[in-house]
Amino acid sequence: MPHDAALAELQSFLGDRLSRSKAERAVHGVNETWFPETPPDAVAWPETTAEVARIVKTCAAHGCPVTAWGTGTSLEGHALAVRGGISLDLARMNRVLKVRAEDMQAVVQPGVTREVLNTELRATGLMFPVDPGANASLGGMAATRASGTTAVRYGTMRDNVMALEVVLADGRVIRTGSGARKSSAGYDLTGLFVGSEGTLGVITELTLKLHGQPEAISAAVCAFDDFAAAVETVIATIQMGIPMARIEFVDEATAAIFNAANGTSLPEKPHLMVEFHGSKASVAEDARRFGEVVAEMGGADFAWATTTEDRTRLWKMRHGAYPACIASRPGAMGLVTDMCVPISRLAEAVAETRADIAASGIPGPILGHVGDGNFHAILLIERGNAAELKTAKGLAHRMAERALRLGGTITGEHGVGMGKMGLMAAEHGEAWEVMARIKRALDPDGILNPGKLVETAQ
Amino acid sequence: MPHDAALAELQSFLGDRLSRSKAERAVHGVNETWFPETPPDAVAWPETTAEVARIVKTCAAHGCPVTAWGTGTSLEGHALAVRGGISLDLARMNRVLKVRAEDMQAVVQPGVTREVLNTELRATGLMFPVDPGANASLGGMAATRASGTTAVRYGTMRDNVMALEVVLADGRVIRTGSGARKSSAGYDLTGLFVGSEGTLGVITELTLKLHGQPEAISAAVCAFDDFAAAVETVIATIQMGIPMARIEFVDEATAAIFNAANGTSLPEKPHLMVEFHGSKASVAEDARRFGEVVAEMGGADFAWATTTEDRTRLWKMRHGAYPACIASRPGAMGLVTDMCVPISRLAEAVAETRADIAASGIPGPILGHVGDGNFHAILLIERGNAAELKTAKGLAHRMAERALRLGGTITGEHGVGMGKMGLMAAEHGEAWEVMARIKRALDPDGILNPGKLVETAQ
Repeated sequence: MPHDAALAELQSFLGDRLSRSKAERAVHGVNETWFPETPPDAVAWPETTAEVARIVKTCAAHGCPVTAWGTGTSLEGHALAVRGGISLDLARMNRVLKVRAEDMQAVVQPGVTREVLNTELRATGLMFPVDPGANASLGGMAATRASGTTAVRYGTMRDNVMALEVVLADGRVIRTGSGARKSSAGYDLTGLFVGSEGTLGVITELTLKLHGQPEAISAAVCAFDDFAAAVETVIATIQMGIPMARIEFVDEATAAIFNAANGTSLPEKPHLMVEFHGSKASVAEDARRFGEVVAEMGGADFAWATTTEDRTRLWKMRHGAYPACIASRPGAMGLVTDMCVPISRLAEAVAETRADIAASGIPGPILGHVGDGNFHAILLIERGNAAELKTAKGLAHRMAERALRLGGTITGEHGVGMGKMGLMAAEHGEAWEVMARIKRALDPDGILNPGKLVETAQ
Repeated sequence: MPHDAALAELQSFLGDRLSRSKAERAVHGVNETWFPETPPDAVAWPETTAEVARIVKTCAAHGCPVTAWGTGTSLEGHALAVRGGISLDLARMNRVLKVRAEDMQAVVQPGVTREVLNTELRATGLMFPVDPGANASLGGMAATRASGTTAVRYGTMRDNVMALEVVLADGRVIRTGSGARKSSAGYDLTGLFVGSEGTLGVITELTLKLHGQPEAISAAVCAFDDFAAAVETVIATIQMGIPMARIEFVDEATAAIFNAANGTSLPEKPHLMVEFHGSKASVAEDARRFGEVVAEMGGADFAWATTTEDRTRLWKMRHGAYPACIASRPGAMGLVTDMCVPISRLAEAVAETRADIAASGIPGPILGHVGDGNFHAILLIERGNAAELKTAKGLAHRMAERALRLGGTITGEHGVGMGKMGLMAAEHGEAWEVMARIKRALDPDGILNPGKLVETAQ
């Protein structure tokens, strides 16, 4: 078995927190989308930063790859140990270490999930708003620079991670950032590790920016005859400075899927789903002004969800989109992809993507974060159907190319992983080589999540 | 003369846009604070990215240092060519290349100043809010990760630079980021170059995030008996989610200096200066709620500046603080330093700093960005008085150490340059060595602004 020496040494101090069992390896070899099962050689469950450091140091000495694992909910195969070695499962590093309410900060271990953190915060009047849908681990969310429905108001993980503790490829432990809200003391290492997908270091602690729980929330859903009008509505709303906490769109196909899954009767048209956070007065004012824009742009069937119950139902429907889409085609699996463009090009991007999907014969509902110009296609392919998989990959590839042609990025929030490696040169040109230089400088032997994000062999 | 061969080659394509004149070298050898005059060997004025690339390539071939120059308004000696070579003056790359109003973005050359950009934007209803006081160049502001009075609402340069064009140390040109509002496509190179102080590359183009000009603005100034009450006011305001566009404090010494410089009659007490941006209704609501907090905390002499004229006067006074402080001690020069702490530690940080300054015998008014926990001491020392300079350096050093002890950073917005090199190891520990590794990976021969931010020889 490969890496036997490394694994034996790891076992000596991890005991039964290192497993080579087929079952555990299988659990850590799967992913949420189409990538083939790829079990690691073993799974390790560290409980402290010192253990992570010792594991990485041991693995470095033996040339054994280390791939961090949070909740396994990433969408581009990030957490698969494609070059073997160990899957470093951070689930046992799951403590909220400190909540500093006055500074609106929390210090957490990487295995804490966002829902656990928000439950712990409930009594403080604070919240951590970044919400990628899945109940992901905060370490994983930082590593993939996650965002989601609330990024339009609260930013992505880039904006909400203030400081990190990181174990480097040689086992040394560093701290980046501080408890201060800003700094100009040198290179922004925090920002470099956020989104580095475990290729530069293993995140072992995060200081997160918290936000006040809004005094009042109101949400609404409304239908448009065409998607361009929905986008125009959002552009006008942003330009008027009306602060939206969420602004989502779903296409006609997704509306139909929502109806089937939730028993609703949305018209089969493009919809916007919006939410405002603030004081009672400001939320009422925001809603009124937004309503005026919607009316002007021809939006209809405008329904406000003011009770908590109604709102929960609305966002549950939105967050349940992925399973609902999968269920809409029996026996299907999803190839989920995302792209992100300047908002002025969003209508065009969606129209072209819809046309391409329609021509392919594969069902592919579209939905996303219109305020960020970021959307997803959930390409529903028959499990085991190689031809459909190939078609879906082609659609995803063309989406990414379209994003670049329209001045955007191949991925707004899903990340690179393995799935988008082949598009990095197209997006970044020589800057991708700069990324590889940084990778080599920080991980010269390439033991941290090899095969992802950068190609160091080039 | 050193670098003769490099300079001769540069002259061959720059003609009179390369100067070795004593006068030009002197202009590019001065700085806004205490660092001794350090003229470069020559000054170059490129007009295009291709020229910057050719200059850097030429210099790289000859081992001639290249130090970028914007407006020379930085405060830690960033732009001084301390190891000789050329000062790369970007003043002629001063065009606003594109304003994309729908996407709220502007593409500019690095020599455009923030005031020029805002003048160009006036008719669009948009603005670029980052405001470090000086009318700095946008390239320089990005390179030093500038912020200022409005960062509490709009963020720093880290948050407002979306994409860059950068000339690398070998003369290659890369692009980072895109026109999309977010991305998870690889390492955040934009964030890495922002704040890198010209040590990793020369910024030749910036895509900036714009914001809507607020429909309504209101500003106010109010006095507190002690600074701790002022800080409590700000913490409560932030926790209530009242969005402040600016929230500045000045200490009693600065209030006295304001009175002398502007003929005002502020009580000689700590003051808060605050501004709200929004719709007429939201600004009125914010002001009302803020007023309630101030009253509760014992703030007095509350005066609203609602007319544009009154507001202009208020912020002119604030932005004129530096020259007013200098003028308050005839024959003095300023050693200006900044530190930044978690806001819960701000009152403590200011109290300790005031006591330390008082004991030193040097006048040192304190003022800053209370919403960010960031403040400045303007240490007024007699020009040419070595003993006072030494005392002031000691005070500044202890401020930085205090920042670290309180969980903050040695500099919130002024940067490292030369002035804070000696504190980087204390703040970052081994992470400073990681910065050096990145520096060596991107600039192996150390030709870009050598002697700043990182110590590559270590």
